[in-house]
Amino acid sequence: MQVREPIGDDPGAEVRRDRRPGRDLCEIGDLSLDEACAVLASAARMVPIVEGRGLRRLDTLRGAQLLSVFNEPSTRTRLSFEVAARRLGAVVVRFTADGASSATKGETELDGLLNLDAMGFDAVVVRDRRDRVPHAWTRVLRARVVNAGDGTNEHPTQALLDTLTILEAFGRAPAPGALAGLTIAVCGDVRHGRVAHSGLKLFALLGARCVVAGPGDLAPPELAERYDARWAPDLDAAITGADVAMMLRIQRERLAPGVAQPDAASYHAAWGLTPERLGRLAPGAIVMHPGPINRGVELADAVADGPQSRILRQVTLGVAVRMAVLARACGAELP
Amino acid sequence: MQVREPIGDDPGAEVRRDRRPGRDLCEIGDLSLDEACAVLASAARMVPIVEGRGLRRLDTLRGAQLLSVFNEPSTRTRLSFEVAARRLGAVVVRFTADGASSATKGETELDGLLNLDAMGFDAVVVRDRRDRVPHAWTRVLRARVVNAGDGTNEHPTQALLDTLTILEAFGRAPAPGALAGLTIAVCGDVRHGRVAHSGLKLFALLGARCVVAGPGDLAPPELAERYDARWAPDLDAAITGADVAMMLRIQRERLAPGVAQPDAASYHAAWGLTPERLGRLAPGAIVMHPGPINRGVELADAVADGPQSRILRQVTLGVAVRMAVLARACGAELP
Amino acid sequence: MQVREPIGDDPGAEVRRDRRPGRDLCEIGDLSLDEACAVLASAARMVPIVEGRGLRRLDTLRGAQLLSVFNEPSTRTRLSFEVAARRLGAVVVRFTADGASSATKGETELDGLLNLDAMGFDAVVVRDRRDRVPHAWTRVLRARVVNAGDGTNEHPTQALLDTLTILEAFGRAPAPGALAGLTIAVCGDVRHGRVAHSGLKLFALLGARCVVAGPGDLAPPELAERYDARWAPDLDAAITGADVAMMLRIQRERLAPGVAQPDAASYHAAWGLTPERLGRLAPGAIVMHPGPINRGVELADAVADGPQSRILRQVTLGVAVRMAVLARACGAELP
Repeated sequence: MQVREPIGDDPGAEVRRDRRPGRDLCEIGDLSLDEACAVLASAARMVPIVEGRGLRRLDTLRGAQLLSVFNEPSTRTRLSFEVAARRLGAVVVRFTADGASSATKGETELDGLLNLDAMGFDAVVVRDRRDRVPHAWTRVLRARVVNAGDGTNEHPTQALLDTLTILEAFGRAPAPGALAGLTIAVCGDVRHGRVAHSGLKLFALLGARCVVAGPGDLAPPELAERYDARWAPDLDAAITGADVAMMLRIQRERLAPGVAQPDAASYHAAWGLTPERLGRLAPGAIVMHPGPINRGVELADAVADGPQSRILRQVTLGVAVRMAVLARACGAELP
Repeated sequence: MQVREPIGDDPGAEVRRDRRPGRDLCEIGDLSLDEACAVLASAARMVPIVEGRGLRRLDTLRGAQLLSVFNEPSTRTRLSFEVAARRLGAVVVRFTADGASSATKGETELDGLLNLDAMGFDAVVVRDRRDRVPHAWTRVLRARVVNAGDGTNEHPTQALLDTLTILEAFGRAPAPGALAGLTIAVCGDVRHGRVAHSGLKLFALLGARCVVAGPGDLAPPELAERYDARWAPDLDAAITGADVAMMLRIQRERLAPGVAQPDAASYHAAWGLTPERLGRLAPGAIVMHPGPINRGVELADAVADGPQSRILRQVTLGVAVRMAVLARACGAELP
Repeated sequence: MQVREPIGDDPGAEVRRDRRPGRDLCEIGDLSLDEACAVLASAARMVPIVEGRGLRRLDTLRGAQLLSVFNEPSTRTRLSFEVAARRLGAVVVRFTADGASSATKGETELDGLLNLDAMGFDAVVVRDRRDRVPHAWTRVLRARVVNAGDGTNEHPTQALLDTLTILEAFGRAPAPGALAGLTIAVCGDVRHGRVAHSGLKLFALLGARCVVAGPGDLAPPELAERYDARWAPDLDAAITGADVAMMLRIQRERLAPGVAQPDAASYHAAWGLTPERLGRLAPGAIVMHPGPINRGVELADAVADGPQSRILRQVTLGVAVRMAVLARACGAELP
């Protein structure tokens, strides 16, 4: 989105700034170490609600209205945010820019957005195929912005849920250094993986050692360097001794046109996590994947469904994490 | 859906079974006679809420989240379930598998489903064009499953609402034998009518005499036999002396390709319920139709809009029935 | 919609009339002067809720269910009604007649509508591309009807929010004669503008002087006459001395086929509100537009984003107005 800068002329700009009591979350860098730990601790307290043990709903965000803007295909993330919002008593309104919208009537995207904002939403959850759209929105909206994935840039709530999954699996509390001593191997299409980018930042912030590996151009040494991670030339080297194997799918929809797509069988042979390879992991290691998984490609069935898999647990904890992030965005305290 | 059986390996399976306090409803056979009567009695108590007399909403399912998965065109049933859920304070999240979903990213249908389930929904309402999909889901989901129509198999909530409509019209309370002495003629495309299949089972369970009739292959004698119903060779024979004429539309979308479609006029002449034919019904008889109705085909306008028609009453009672079924699915007691 | 008149035969018609405690709003003529002032006063009391000052939600419509039927592209109006309903604790169910609906199964539009109505909705918000569809619905539905824009006919909630914006800008309370002494220029495609039609009626009802101007056939003198407004031959003549410039976009989607579409640059030169032209307005004048705006066509950027623009304020006040209208439709009193 091209963000014009007419806001200075706008008599509402002052009000707009004043009326933003919560906090945006566009990228992991928006969180200090203490804030990241606080969000994770809040999320951990929400888990029983998601699991249906005891209370099923809080009134923390009663009266809050959230706008959900997904301009890219998504099922799990969109629904996860909606479920989270409603467990806190908030209302969610879905908006999708499509042919049925006012864009066909000649309105600019920014005007459409300012219109929605003028209706008084407390927070906007946005997914967009363009990098840094959420960041741009924070400069023009009164509502707080939560990034649900922007292009190939970041996906901060996924990094938080991945971290919560690791903390739970290894019995650690969210605190500075909570991941110290753990090795996390991030394997596959790291380049296009916004999950990987946010994850590598947050894992490092909490003291983990990270390893990066992937085919050809999709995980080059420079990328590892950028995140202070170790680079590994192949999957075996990456996962040997690792406590967490975080497998990523090839983001076919993001490969440059003309780039040859790896076929599933040869990808699986070289970069798929198989039962045989599992033995290389450290004792007690876990397998994670942000989903959707491609069976027989980056994961063998027996691994996806095996006892070390935390893939569905990630989904459950994702709702808890989004409850914490939405409460923070709205400036509300969770019990 | 091809349901794999990896659940034995899944560490979550135990939890999944334990955390299912309510009851699935995939088919009429899931209900004992006493349970069917209890659901009907609960539903009857909900009618004033649907009608706007007194309280408009209960908090029975406050905090519950329902997933609504309609993989086949539907308006009335989908909205009826949504309205029912919200009258009990529950939240409904719509999911439709379409091009915008993660299926395009290579995920299997089962993985997508397990993902949704991991978000902590209490119940899933499912309509699918394939037979017995809801039954398969009960084996893999933590959430309770309510069948909103599967292929040509069953549509149990429709049978319950049809029964409640008959009980109300004839002033009977829901109890064993409540339909004794009543004759119910089910006429039209019985073969492809999941409504008919569920209805014939439930009507018989409550003591009604049923008659089945329909053109050619769509209601053969074997079908009547399967449900312990009387077979009639034509509409006049079917409805003569009947207390209820339940008319069905031709399910054109389910006819085998190449099968000749009857034209509306000749269908109406042979199988349409007209004002002239109404005289053959028993005194005080009612006319029902699960909708959508095809005017001038299975029903003449004057019959659809006439004083014996209970067609819109079926819709109103349908919301009450779904309130009862959803409460049962979530393991909650209605007042 | 062809509305049949079988309702007299329908045993439910009596009940239907009895159970309509609220008030329809199909056109401005449905409001007496006192009622219009009461709605505006209620809306004014809702503004702090929309703005996030103090209470964020009332329970006035707790338990009410609203059906939202938009059969024409719309974003802002649809969401505005949804947001408004939920700020009052009501539930909103969206229905869109599309290929996935039961229309494909041979049902008439009226039958589909009566079915929805039988589910017990309290009010229906309808937008339709055909004139007077909401009016027709009031004759067949139990639920109250609120017009969210019908063809080129009326858009009464927009007129109310425009009026509230003017009252606020000029520090006036909603009362008979509240707009006395103010001149409101309505400029552009008045012929196809349902916003203009409703606005001109309501502004006049409250004592404003109105001026009408627009290119060629889109704002002829007869149109001005119909609304007791002054006709102006060009934009400069229309806005000179006006307290409010209400600019309209060309409704390209409503121009008769074959009518030449004005190009943006020449339209802007003749009918666009530019910073130069602003000086012709009265001191303290404001600029309004119902949106979506076409920048560089009917409005220059500097005007749309300038200090006299109330365009986004209209959106905020629109939510407050719809809260008042929905409460009235449901027969509820706002605090």
